[in-house]
Amino acid sequence: MKKRTEYRRESDSIGTLDVPKEAYYGVQSLRGKNNFSISGERMHPVFIKYMAYIKKAAAQTNLQGGKLNADKATAIDQACDEVIGGKLRDEFIVDPIQGGAGTSANMNINEVIANRAEEILGGSKGAYEFVHPNDHVNMAQSTNDVIPTAGKLTVLELIDDLGIEVKRLEEALKAKGKEFDDVIKMGRTQLQDAVPMRLGQSFTAYGEMVARDFRRLMAAKASMEEVNLGGTAIGSAINVPRYYLDNIVPILAELTGFPLHQSANLFDATENLDGFVTVSGVLRTCAVNLSKMSNDLRLLSSGPKTGLREINLPAKQNGSSIMPGKVNPVIPEVVSQVAYHVIGHDVTITMAAEAGQLELNAFEPIVFFNLFESLETLRGAIRTLTDNCISGITANRERCRELLEHSAGLTTALCPHIGYKKAAVIAKEALSTDRPVREIVMAEKLLPQEAVEEVLDPYAMTEPGLQRVKG
Amino acid sequence: MKKRTEYRRESDSIGTLDVPKEAYYGVQSLRGKNNFSISGERMHPVFIKYMAYIKKAAAQTNLQGGKLNADKATAIDQACDEVIGGKLRDEFIVDPIQGGAGTSANMNINEVIANRAEEILGGSKGAYEFVHPNDHVNMAQSTNDVIPTAGKLTVLELIDDLGIEVKRLEEALKAKGKEFDDVIKMGRTQLQDAVPMRLGQSFTAYGEMVARDFRRLMAAKASMEEVNLGGTAIGSAINVPRYYLDNIVPILAELTGFPLHQSANLFDATENLDGFVTVSGVLRTCAVNLSKMSNDLRLLSSGPKTGLREINLPAKQNGSSIMPGKVNPVIPEVVSQVAYHVIGHDVTITMAAEAGQLELNAFEPIVFFNLFESLETLRGAIRTLTDNCISGITANRERCRELLEHSAGLTTALCPHIGYKKAAVIAKEALSTDRPVREIVMAEKLLPQEAVEEVLDPYAMTEPGLQRVKG
Amino acid sequence: MKKRTEYRRESDSIGTLDVPKEAYYGVQSLRGKNNFSISGERMHPVFIKYMAYIKKAAAQTNLQGGKLNADKATAIDQACDEVIGGKLRDEFIVDPIQGGAGTSANMNINEVIANRAEEILGGSKGAYEFVHPNDHVNMAQSTNDVIPTAGKLTVLELIDDLGIEVKRLEEALKAKGKEFDDVIKMGRTQLQDAVPMRLGQSFTAYGEMVARDFRRLMAAKASMEEVNLGGTAIGSAINVPRYYLDNIVPILAELTGFPLHQSANLFDATENLDGFVTVSGVLRTCAVNLSKMSNDLRLLSSGPKTGLREINLPAKQNGSSIMPGKVNPVIPEVVSQVAYHVIGHDVTITMAAEAGQLELNAFEPIVFFNLFESLETLRGAIRTLTDNCISGITANRERCRELLEHSAGLTTALCPHIGYKKAAVIAKEALSTDRPVREIVMAEKLLPQEAVEEVLDPYAMTEPGLQRVKG
Amino acid sequence: MKKRTEYRRESDSIGTLDVPKEAYYGVQSLRGKNNFSISGERMHPVFIKYMAYIKKAAAQTNLQGGKLNADKATAIDQACDEVIGGKLRDEFIVDPIQGGAGTSANMNINEVIANRAEEILGGSKGAYEFVHPNDHVNMAQSTNDVIPTAGKLTVLELIDDLGIEVKRLEEALKAKGKEFDDVIKMGRTQLQDAVPMRLGQSFTAYGEMVARDFRRLMAAKASMEEVNLGGTAIGSAINVPRYYLDNIVPILAELTGFPLHQSANLFDATENLDGFVTVSGVLRTCAVNLSKMSNDLRLLSSGPKTGLREINLPAKQNGSSIMPGKVNPVIPEVVSQVAYHVIGHDVTITMAAEAGQLELNAFEPIVFFNLFESLETLRGAIRTLTDNCISGITANRERCRELLEHSAGLTTALCPHIGYKKAAVIAKEALSTDRPVREIVMAEKLLPQEAVEEVLDPYAMTEPGLQRVKG
Repeated sequence: MKKRTEYRRESDSIGTLDVPKEAYYGVQSLRGKNNFSISGERMHPVFIKYMAYIKKAAAQTNLQGGKLNADKATAIDQACDEVIGGKLRDEFIVDPIQGGAGTSANMNINEVIANRAEEILGGSKGAYEFVHPNDHVNMAQSTNDVIPTAGKLTVLELIDDLGIEVKRLEEALKAKGKEFDDVIKMGRTQLQDAVPMRLGQSFTAYGEMVARDFRRLMAAKASMEEVNLGGTAIGSAINVPRYYLDNIVPILAELTGFPLHQSANLFDATENLDGFVTVSGVLRTCAVNLSKMSNDLRLLSSGPKTGLREINLPAKQNGSSIMPGKVNPVIPEVVSQVAYHVIGHDVTITMAAEAGQLELNAFEPIVFFNLFESLETLRGAIRTLTDNCISGITANRERCRELLEHSAGLTTALCPHIGYKKAAVIAKEALSTDRPVREIVMAEKLLPQEAVEEVLDPYAMTEPGLQRVKG
Repeated sequence: MKKRTEYRRESDSIGTLDVPKEAYYGVQSLRGKNNFSISGERMHPVFIKYMAYIKKAAAQTNLQGGKLNADKATAIDQACDEVIGGKLRDEFIVDPIQGGAGTSANMNINEVIANRAEEILGGSKGAYEFVHPNDHVNMAQSTNDVIPTAGKLTVLELIDDLGIEVKRLEEALKAKGKEFDDVIKMGRTQLQDAVPMRLGQSFTAYGEMVARDFRRLMAAKASMEEVNLGGTAIGSAINVPRYYLDNIVPILAELTGFPLHQSANLFDATENLDGFVTVSGVLRTCAVNLSKMSNDLRLLSSGPKTGLREINLPAKQNGSSIMPGKVNPVIPEVVSQVAYHVIGHDVTITMAAEAGQLELNAFEPIVFFNLFESLETLRGAIRTLTDNCISGITANRERCRELLEHSAGLTTALCPHIGYKKAAVIAKEALSTDRPVREIVMAEKLLPQEAVEEVLDPYAMTEPGLQRVKG
Repeated sequence: MKKRTEYRRESDSIGTLDVPKEAYYGVQSLRGKNNFSISGERMHPVFIKYMAYIKKAAAQTNLQGGKLNADKATAIDQACDEVIGGKLRDEFIVDPIQGGAGTSANMNINEVIANRAEEILGGSKGAYEFVHPNDHVNMAQSTNDVIPTAGKLTVLELIDDLGIEVKRLEEALKAKGKEFDDVIKMGRTQLQDAVPMRLGQSFTAYGEMVARDFRRLMAAKASMEEVNLGGTAIGSAINVPRYYLDNIVPILAELTGFPLHQSANLFDATENLDGFVTVSGVLRTCAVNLSKMSNDLRLLSSGPKTGLREINLPAKQNGSSIMPGKVNPVIPEVVSQVAYHVIGHDVTITMAAEAGQLELNAFEPIVFFNLFESLETLRGAIRTLTDNCISGITANRERCRELLEHSAGLTTALCPHIGYKKAAVIAKEALSTDRPVREIVMAEKLLPQEAVEEVLDPYAMTEPGLQRVKG
Repeated sequence: MKKRTEYRRESDSIGTLDVPKEAYYGVQSLRGKNNFSISGERMHPVFIKYMAYIKKAAAQTNLQGGKLNADKATAIDQACDEVIGGKLRDEFIVDPIQGGAGTSANMNINEVIANRAEEILGGSKGAYEFVHPNDHVNMAQSTNDVIPTAGKLTVLELIDDLGIEVKRLEEALKAKGKEFDDVIKMGRTQLQDAVPMRLGQSFTAYGEMVARDFRRLMAAKASMEEVNLGGTAIGSAINVPRYYLDNIVPILAELTGFPLHQSANLFDATENLDGFVTVSGVLRTCAVNLSKMSNDLRLLSSGPKTGLREINLPAKQNGSSIMPGKVNPVIPEVVSQVAYHVIGHDVTITMAAEAGQLELNAFEPIVFFNLFESLETLRGAIRTLTDNCISGITANRERCRELLEHSAGLTTALCPHIGYKKAAVIAKEALSTDRPVREIVMAEKLLPQEAVEEVLDPYAMTEPGLQRVKG
C-alpha cells in the first residue's frame, strides 16, 4: 500500500502551494514543474553538478567577503558537496525545457540546497529560517549569470569527454592507414573510376580529417571558459560586493579545475549566446565529417556480391529479420543518423541564439538541452564507431587489385606522354573492348615497352615521389 | 545484497552471447543494445505498443491463412496483448537511435514475444522450441515493413493527441477574441504605430491561424495511413502468402482502429520517407505560427512599466531569483523554445529522408526519434500555453486606449479626404508637437467638424462596415 | 562619349533627392535602391508583372466604384499593360532583398505607373499632377496587401511552370519503368545484397514518388489562392470603399486567370506567412525525393569498371580535365545540389515566417527571394534531369543478371521452407565458398529438385503473384 | 538587324558541337551551359579572377619546371592577365550551379585561356594548334584541385572585404557606446523591467560582440589558406612533376598575395569540405549576432507613440504607401532578413559537405554559390547598417529616464538590505499603487533616509564600482 504523501505549505509572490513534506525542493520548483511538462526528462546530471559547484563557490566567496556567516556557509557547502557527489538527484524536478532563462532550474537548486542546509543546521524543510534560497544560497547571483555559467561548465566537461573519443578514433583510423598502406586500389571521384591509390591513404586521410575536428573542438573551449558570473541580472553586477565580483570566478575555477575567467564585458556576456553557437558549429562540422566517412565505409563494404566489396566491416549483428545471412553496416548507419541529429540541433541552437532580446537571451534552456544531447550522442556514436567498426575493418586485397586492373583509369598517366586527346581514345577503346590499357598502348606502339611498364605502374601513381613523369 | 544475475547462452549467425536468464529479450536485442549506446533513452512506449499490434495482426492473419497453428498463434496473441497493455516494458532494451533501419527494434519485439509465448506454451526462455522469433513472430514480415508501419501508427496516435490540444488552443483564442472584441487599441506594423484595431481581432486572427494548423494536421494523417506492410524486405512481398498480403492491413486496421490501407506500390512505400517529411513539415509550420504568436504575447505584455503593457499574462511563477516582484512570460517563452526544437528536428528528418539509398531508407530510427519528440513536446507546449497562459490573459483597456489616443496613426483615415501628402504633413506635426490629430485638422479647417468626428473615429477604422469613406 | 545624366528634383516626407530626369521611377524608389544594396539582383520579372496586374485591377475597381475618374484609370491601365507586357523593366531598381515588408517594391511600381500614366496624360515625370503614386495608383491599397498578393500570384505561376516539369519527369520515369520491366537484378538494402527485383520496378517506384510530389504541389496552390487584398495596412481594410473591398479580388482573379478569393480573416492573412511555409515545405519534400533518386542513379551507374554499373546514364560532357575518357553523372549531381539549395532556402523561409511581429510580417522580401529561387532552380534541375538523363538511361542487362546470380540473396526464399536459421547457414556457406545457393540446397537435399527450381526462381521473387510459397 | 552568328565545329569525347565562331569558350563550355540552366546567373567575377590566377601560376611553374615552352607560357600568361583585369567576362557562360565538381567551370577557363593564347600566337580559335585547353592550360592540374583552390582564394578576398565592414560596424557601435554613456535607462530581461543600466552599455556590448565576430572571421581564414593545388585528380598528384608540386603553391601565393600553403595530406584536402563548413559557421554566427542586435534596435525604437521609443533610428524612407508619416526600421529589417538568408545557406553548405563520396566532394559548386552569396549579402547588410542606421541613432534621454523612474526595478537594490521577500512586497505595492519605490521605503521606514538615497540611486546600480552595497 502506497503511503499517503504529507504536505507542507509554502508561499511565494504568486501565492501558496502544497509541497510534499519530505521534499528538499520548494514552492518555486514545484511551480516550474507544473508549468513545464514538455520533454518529460530530467535536467542533465552534469549540469546539476555544476549548478551545485557554483552555489558552493558563491557560499565560499560570500563567507570570505564577510557577507555570509560561517554556519550558513558551511551548511550550504556541505549540501552542495552532497549534490556534487550525486545525492538528492530526485529533488531536481523541473523539465530541462523550460521558460524563463532557467529561473526554474536555478530556484530548484537554490531550494534544494537551502532546505538541505536548513536541515543540517537543525531547521525544518520549508522554514527557511537559517538558510533562504534567494538571500543566502543565491546570494550575489542571478539566474542570468548562474545558468549560463553552469551551462558552460557542463559543455566543457562534455567536450573533454567527447575529445577522448575523437582522439581514439583518430588513432584507430591512422592505425588502419598503416595497416592498409600496401593495398593498391582504384580511387573514385563522383563514383566513377578515377586513378589508383592505396587503401591506407584513405584511412590516413580520414585520420587527418578527424585530427582537425579534435583541434577545432579543443579550440572551441575558449569561448566556454569565459563566464559572466558576477554580472547578476543584466551584467551590471547589481547587488554584487566588490570582493565577490573579483573572486567568484577564480574560486569557481579552482573548485572545478577549469581555467575560467570573467568576461570583460558582462552585458555582452549575458545577452549574447554566440559562444554556444560556435561550439555547436564545431560539433556539426565534426558530424559532417563523420557522416561523410561513414557513407564511404558503407560504399566500400557494399556487397557482399553485388557491391564494391573492397573492405569488410566487422559483423556486429544479424542484418535482417527476414533475409538470412545478411549483415548490414549498422555502425556507420547510426553514425550518420547521429550526424543528422546534431545538424538539426545546430539549427535549433542557432534560432534560439538569434531570438535573444535586449539584456538577456531567455532561450538558454533549449540551447543547453540540444547542445548537451549533441555532445553526448556524438560521443556515443564515435565510441561505437571506433570499437565496433573501424578497429575491426579488414581489406579485400584481391578484390581491390582485381577491380583496379580491369579499369581504364590508368590512362590518366598517359596524358603527359601522348596528350589528353589520344589518351581519351585509348580509354574509350579499353572500356568498349575490355582490353587492358597496357595492351592497347603496346599494340599501337605509342610508347617504348620499357616506358609503358614505368608509366602504367599503378603503385607509382599513388604518390608523387613514385611516379617518373618525363613528359 | 544484489542477487547475482544468472545467464543463459544464446546464439545467432554472429556467434553466442550470455543473456540474463530471466530476460524475455534475446541475443539479438542484446547485440543491438551493445552496439548502440547513443541516446541513453528507451524506445517510445506508443511505438512498442504498435509493434506489438503488428505482431498480433500478423499472427492472426497467419493463423487464418493456415500458416501458423492455433497454439502458436494464440500464445503470440496473448504475449502481444500483454505488451499492448503495458507489460514487459523493461524488456525493450535497444536504444531508439540505432543502425539498421530498426532491425534491432524489430528483433527486440520478436524475441520478447517469442520468449513470452514460449513460456505460455510451457517452454523455457531462449529455447525457441515452440515459438521462434523469426519463423513465427516475424512470419511474413521484415523489419523493412514492420518498422515504418509501427512508426506511422505511432505518428497517427500522437497526431490525434496533439490535435486535441491544438483544437483547445483554437477555442481558447477565439474565446479571448470575443472577450476583447470591444478593446480598441493601436495596431502596429514593423513595431511602428499603424492604424487602430480591436484587441479581440488579434486573438480571433490567432484562432484562425491555429485552426489552419489543425486542418493541416488532420490532412497530414493521410500519408500515415498508407502503409507498406506486406512488402517485406524491399516491397516485392517475398515470402508473403497471398492471403497474408491481402488481409494483414485490414486486420491491423481493425485492431488499431486507424483507417489504414496498403500502398499500391510497395517498393516506393518502402524506400521513400516523404510522408514523414510531410508530417514534420506540418509540425514545423505549426511551430512557426505558435512562436510568432508567443512573441506577440511577450511584446503586448511587456512591462510592467517600461513596455507596451496592453495585456497581462497570468503570473505563473516568480520571474527572477534576484529581482523581487518580477514576473516573466515563461509560458510563451517555452513555446518558442519548443518551436525551435521542432524546426531543428525538421532539418534532421529532412536530411535522414534524403539519405535513403536504393531499396530502403535505413535512417528511419532517427526520423522516428525526432518526429515523436516533435509531436510530444509540441503537445506539452500547447497544453501549457492554453491552460497556463491564454485562458488567463486580461486586457489593460485603459492603457490600450491611452496609447491609441496619443498616436498619429489616425491620420491614415484622412488620406482619402485630403490626400497622402497633406496627411503626412499633419502626421509629422502631430508627432513633433504632441497635439492630437483631431485638433490640428480642426485648427487648419481641413474638413468640416462633423466630418472630422466621423473620419477620425478610431472604432470605425477597425472594420470595413464601420468606416464611412466618402473620398 | 557618355551623355551626362540630367536630373529632376523630387521630395517626400524624408526630404528631397535628385532623380534622373528620364526615369519613370521616383524619389522613393531611389531611396530604396540606396538603402538596400544587398543581392545586386533585380526583382523577379513575374513578380513585377503581378504587381502591375494588381495596380490594373485596383484602377479598374476604383473606376467602377466611382473613386477614380476615367482618364486617370485609363492611363494607369495602359501603363500597367505596358509593364505586364515586359516594358519598363529597367525602371524597377530596388533590390529584391529589402526592408520594410516590400514598401520599396510597392512604391517602385507605384511611381513607375504614376509617371508613365502622367506622361500618357500629357504631364511630365515627377510632377504627379494628374496621377499620384499613393493617391491614385496605390488607391485603397497598402504595401501590406499588395506585396503578399503579388507574391502569391508569382508563386502560383511558378508552381504551374514547375508542375509541368514534374509531370514530364513522372512520365519519363514510368516509361523507363516499362522499358526495364524484364530486367532482373538484385535489390539492395543498406547497400547490401537483399532480394531480387526488376529494374523497371525501381523506375516505376520513382514515378509514383514523383507523382506524389506533383499532387502535393497542386494541393499547395490552395494556400496561395487566398489573398489579403483589400485588407490594406493591417487587415482592417481602412480607407477601403465597400465596392472595392467586395470586387478587387474577383476582378484580379478575372484578369490573371487564377481562382483567387479573399481571406475571411484579413488580419490573420496579413500577419501570418504559414501559407508560404507550406509551399516551401512541399518544395523541399520534392527536393528530398529528387536527391534520393539522383543518389540512386549515381550508385547504379557507378563504374564503369569498379562500380555497380547496372545502368548507364547518357554521357553529357567530358567528366574530367585530367582523366581522359571519364564520364561523370553530372546531371544527378546538379539535381542533388539544387535539392540542398532548396532545403537551405526552406530554413530561411521558416525563420522569416517565425519572425513576424504583431500585425505584419516584415520579412516577406526574403521569403519571396528564396521561394522564387527554389521554384526556379528546381524547375531547371528537373528539366535537365528528364531531358539529359532519365530519358537516355539504358540498362546493362547482362551485368544485372550476373550480379544477381552470384549473390546469396536468393536464400531468403528458402525461409518458409527450411526456416530462418537453416537458411542462414546456407547463405553463409554460399558466400564463403562462392558456390551457388541452388547447388548447396541440392547437395544437402533440403528440398526436392522440382521445388528448388520453383522456390529459387528469382523472377518469381519479384512480385507477389509469381512466387509460389507453400511453406 | 542582328548579325547572323557564324559557327565553328569543335569536338570532344562526347561528339561534335557548333560553337559561335568568335567565342573564346569552346565545346566543353557549351556542353556545360546546355546541361545546366539552373540559376540563370554567371559565375562570380572574383572566382573567375582566381581561376585565371591559378592558370597563370601553373603556366609560370610549368615554364620554370621545363614542361612548357616560353611561347606558350607567355601567351597563356598574357591571356590570364586579361581575364584577371576583367576582360572576356562574357565568355564565362556556364551556370555557377553545375554538376561535376566544377569541371565545366574549369574547362570554361581552360578553353577561354587556350583560345585567347592561340590567338596571341597567331592561331585561330578552336584550332588548339599552339595551345591546348587540357594539355597546356590545365597542365599538371585537375578540376579537383583547381576549383577548390579558386574557391578558397575567392572566400579569402570576400572575407577581407567583409572584415572591413565588420570593423567599421564595431567602431560605429563603440562610438555610440561612448555617446550614450550617460543615458540612464531601464534594462529589460524577457521584455520585463529588470534593473537600471546606461544606454551606452548596450552599444558597447554590441561593439564587443561584433569585435568577436571580427576575430572569428579572421581566424577562419586559416582553413582557406591551406589548398590542395598539386594534388590533381584525387590528391595523389598524378601527372604532377616534382618541381610543379613543390612550387605551384608558393608561386600562386606570391601572385595573389595570400599566405597560401599546400595541404600536408592532399587526399584529405581533396575530399573533405569542412573548411568551408567552418567559414560558413562563422558567418552564420555573425548573422545570429547581427539579427539579435537588429531586433533590439527595432524594439528600442518602437513607437513613435505606442512603443518603447528609447532611441530613434534615422528615417531613411517613407515607411508606408498608405500610412502617412510612418517611418519604419527598414535597415535593421533587411539585416535580419540577410541573417536568415545566411543561416539557410549554412544548412545548404552543411548538407553539401556531408554528401561527399570517397575521393571527392562533387558538390563544391553549390557550396561556393551559397558561400559567396552569404559573404556578399552580409557585407551589403552590414554596410547599410553602419552607414544608414547605427551612425545616425539618437537617444531619447527624457523618455529613458521617465520610464526608469516609473518602474519598480529599483527594488532589486533593496535585497541585500531588507531581504528578497520584503523587497518583493515593496515591488508589488509600487506596481499596484504606482507610487515610487523610494517613497514606500521611506514611508515604511525600512532604511534611514540617507541610505535610501544611496541604495536607490539608479546610476550607481549600473556598474560595480558605483553601487555601495553594505548588506
